[in-house]
Amino acid sequence: MTKMTLPTDLEIARAAALLPIDQVAAAGGIDASRVEHHGRHVAKIHLGAIDDLSACPKAKYVVITALTPTPLGEGKTTTAVGLAQGLARIGRRSMLALRQPSLGPTFGVKGGAAGGGFSQVLPMETLNLHLTGDFHAITTAHDLLAAMIDNHLHHGNELGIDPHSISWRRVVDMNDRALRNIVVGLGAKLDGIPRQSGFDITAASEVGVCLALATSLRDLRERLGRIVIGYTRDRRPVTAEDLKAAGSMTVIMREAIKPNLMQTTENTPVLIHAGPFGNIATGNSSVIADQLGIRTSDYLLTEAGFGADMGAERFFNVKCRVSGLHPDAAVLVTTVRALKTHSGRYKVVAGKPLPPEMLEDNPDDVRAGADNLRKHIEIVRGFGVAPVVAINVFPTDHEDEISAIREIAEQAGARVAASTHVVDGGEGALELARVVEEACGEQTDFRFSYEEQDSIETKLHKVATGVYGADGVEFTVQARKDVALFEELGYGNLPVVIAKTHLSISHDPALRGAPTGWTLPVREVRLAAGAGYVYAICGEMRTMPGLGKHPAAERIDIDENGEIVGLF
Amino acid sequence: MTKMTLPTDLEIARAAALLPIDQVAAAGGIDASRVEHHGRHVAKIHLGAIDDLSACPKAKYVVITALTPTPLGEGKTTTAVGLAQGLARIGRRSMLALRQPSLGPTFGVKGGAAGGGFSQVLPMETLNLHLTGDFHAITTAHDLLAAMIDNHLHHGNELGIDPHSISWRRVVDMNDRALRNIVVGLGAKLDGIPRQSGFDITAASEVGVCLALATSLRDLRERLGRIVIGYTRDRRPVTAEDLKAAGSMTVIMREAIKPNLMQTTENTPVLIHAGPFGNIATGNSSVIADQLGIRTSDYLLTEAGFGADMGAERFFNVKCRVSGLHPDAAVLVTTVRALKTHSGRYKVVAGKPLPPEMLEDNPDDVRAGADNLRKHIEIVRGFGVAPVVAINVFPTDHEDEISAIREIAEQAGARVAASTHVVDGGEGALELARVVEEACGEQTDFRFSYEEQDSIETKLHKVATGVYGADGVEFTVQARKDVALFEELGYGNLPVVIAKTHLSISHDPALRGAPTGWTLPVREVRLAAGAGYVYAICGEMRTMPGLGKHPAAERIDIDENGEIVGLF
Repeated sequence: MTKMTLPTDLEIARAAALLPIDQVAAAGGIDASRVEHHGRHVAKIHLGAIDDLSACPKAKYVVITALTPTPLGEGKTTTAVGLAQGLARIGRRSMLALRQPSLGPTFGVKGGAAGGGFSQVLPMETLNLHLTGDFHAITTAHDLLAAMIDNHLHHGNELGIDPHSISWRRVVDMNDRALRNIVVGLGAKLDGIPRQSGFDITAASEVGVCLALATSLRDLRERLGRIVIGYTRDRRPVTAEDLKAAGSMTVIMREAIKPNLMQTTENTPVLIHAGPFGNIATGNSSVIADQLGIRTSDYLLTEAGFGADMGAERFFNVKCRVSGLHPDAAVLVTTVRALKTHSGRYKVVAGKPLPPEMLEDNPDDVRAGADNLRKHIEIVRGFGVAPVVAINVFPTDHEDEISAIREIAEQAGARVAASTHVVDGGEGALELARVVEEACGEQTDFRFSYEEQDSIETKLHKVATGVYGADGVEFTVQARKDVALFEELGYGNLPVVIAKTHLSISHDPALRGAPTGWTLPVREVRLAAGAGYVYAICGEMRTMPGLGKHPAAERIDIDENGEIVGLF
Repeated sequence: MTKMTLPTDLEIARAAALLPIDQVAAAGGIDASRVEHHGRHVAKIHLGAIDDLSACPKAKYVVITALTPTPLGEGKTTTAVGLAQGLARIGRRSMLALRQPSLGPTFGVKGGAAGGGFSQVLPMETLNLHLTGDFHAITTAHDLLAAMIDNHLHHGNELGIDPHSISWRRVVDMNDRALRNIVVGLGAKLDGIPRQSGFDITAASEVGVCLALATSLRDLRERLGRIVIGYTRDRRPVTAEDLKAAGSMTVIMREAIKPNLMQTTENTPVLIHAGPFGNIATGNSSVIADQLGIRTSDYLLTEAGFGADMGAERFFNVKCRVSGLHPDAAVLVTTVRALKTHSGRYKVVAGKPLPPEMLEDNPDDVRAGADNLRKHIEIVRGFGVAPVVAINVFPTDHEDEISAIREIAEQAGARVAASTHVVDGGEGALELARVVEEACGEQTDFRFSYEEQDSIETKLHKVATGVYGADGVEFTVQARKDVALFEELGYGNLPVVIAKTHLSISHDPALRGAPTGWTLPVREVRLAAGAGYVYAICGEMRTMPGLGKHPAAERIDIDENGEIVGLF
């Protein structure tokens, strides 16, 4: 691995020679008539392309997940991009499906999210700012429903909605803590009915999950109609359909349903589509992007948020259930620093540099954190899918630390490869590409963790014990009441999402490694009837981030040539 | 005039044969390298095109305004489109510059705004829904500044902002009455500082006016930096620059600054750009669109919101001052129903059909309302510009009513033409096209109503008496204090906008015709330092509309083919 000084992400991005986007589409066999340009380097793909390609052979389907990350993240996106580029270099057609990054956090801590180094999605400015407006469409559709709820109350509340039962808040794609808890409808008689409410960030919108899980525009229309916004005074659910909002919401989302085509630093194609939160929502890109991608390549790589206990579990149990697609392999992105953190010997804080002693050569620390990696390998195997451990190598890593990870992975029966894609691009991911290809040759035996007809309680129990390794599930009185209501209303056959921290396989971020001897506490259970699941709240879930004292927004600007500065 | 049954706007729109947008651009001499596609029929034009074309001859510059409209509107947009098409039919290259319609009202009363009949801007769905996301960019830039203000308070308020002085609210492109008056920052310590605030609709955003008046990205950057959001406890203004927000706001607006190219039903080019409110803001499309349009055609038609006392006055006194462009003619769109309303004999209500007796043949009613038209002709002449009265003919009009308007206009010294562009497209606007061409041959003697160095009070006085015909201006104590503060802070040299009803030349919607013997009451004066003007509040100004009991949103949907229904 080269230990030179790497150019900045922005320098690399600006130096990259991008192909016209039709050429990128054509390489995936997408007909020019289906390519709707949005600037020179982004296109929306008309859904007709999915039908066009239905006779094409199906790609091998690989989900990119990770071990339990540190608060810094372990480079899942860079590894996914690197692997796509690596596969191209060994002569395979790859297609990558990623989530759209949220605009709000761009101006918070991050300043941009599009991979890194020589494994980026380009143009990064477009990806991080608006893209083709899908998130704005989600915001608008979501907030139209909110406006129609308050308008319904204002005009006499014909449906008899209990105002205190309304769980539909508003959303904005902004880190804005002051909007978490607000009172609306103040003023005079024509200014609405006063009540408490608030805003979440757009990535937390159920409309966004409807987009991510929809299989067609018609299916999206039906999901939006099924959204439950609250209850009548006699506890009947009130839907977006009841409020006659779902048609307009669908019309607002009519362009957003088309996946966005972009390219990597090495011109391999990337579909960017939807971006629901990884904590309370599904944390996966769209079913539609995967349905398109699976016919346009030899390998479709799709990224699932956070660790295998989080995004990948929802990928398997929720997304694959909807799409009918089954993965051939799962890549577990692993880093030296993450395993060292799981040793419990270091404290890593978001936005701060690593403790310097973590950078010293110390394979014992890596081994001390190995339980977490072993558990994630076991989780993947539990779904009947072949795991591949991808070591995302940092310039500060040491050879014997990497060897230690190889040993751990192999002893756990997983394939393993080290990848230097950030520094070396696709050339650094050749080993990973070959190992993934090998894993995809294995016979798979994909299985869900639970069946639809299991009760909500059983489903939660099966994930908690069978996936996380908990001893059981503990429900509060409220949670039991929630479950009973949903079962009574006919929502009992929906799959489940467990909203918990991503910093531990358990609900408790302090529990490193592979925790045992614990019980999953379910505080309350909520319904996402449009998206199509119920979700159990197991801990504090932040759905509206705040800005720091000196947010990235303060340093982002244009220079004298009108070029963006400070985005990385 | 044909009295057949007209197909619906949507049927006409769907039947129209649209040209690929590069072809539309090429007809205007815009180089293909400057055309950034957004779908097949919309493009953003890179600002480099303005420099490319700087050697091209300047078009004749025509502002499209109107007499004092009824609450239904008098078809200014359809007439502008019809005229553009009429000019094309007599062999002139026309370019039309229009405002982007606000998305919110699409789901309120209107269900869409893009001209009508055979004089539409197409595709109407795209125009009415998101377009290329410029309004979303305005919303995001505006709300980022709001988030940074509340975040600044939360993190210790280093600048010493007086929270009660903060006038920067949030915006959303939605009719949402419940957001007019809210309390933000409730909850716990990390959830911000509680204070009263609210949301306006995006069209009311000062960021949108900055976009409309900017002459370059650099100029936009500077305008955004100058925005005053409130004051310190010792009454020093606090700007977006002080909050270090203006750089990020500009980055968010980087694509929005490029005008959007579309086409009419007859394939003549249209630039859609910016859409500030006509009541409290400038109500005109962008300076940049006009700077581009003026080099791409023989005739640049630009629309100004509401009557000649409203959008056109601001066009002359504010927009032309910034752009340095001077108009050659002003088209005053006039209807039989508007003059009948100005007779004071009928009551027209928005969203309701006309009283049936108004549809009877009655040229006396038309003559009884003639003062209003005469006054608007006088207003236009006052700026040294040639007026052309365009009679927008409705199928229910009678020949002798139209003759009455011709007579009134001619006696007032204006050119006049009747136009049936809604029913007949450009063919119906041939007379208007020829008359406009003739008017543009006249020697112009353009002059502002006031000079920059006039005091704020003098400027307001000159507009009220010289343009509206008021006897004078009356200031409240608050308004005098406002003016004194702005003069002291160095904002005294800014132009003025008078925020008043558009339903009367006066401040009082009940005063029809050409009111005399009245005084303009200025309740308060506000500062739009970024946009670059002060505005006097003369009446209740609604900056956040509400939805009706059965808003258009309830009937908008997709059909079984995924096509939009109910948008008209």
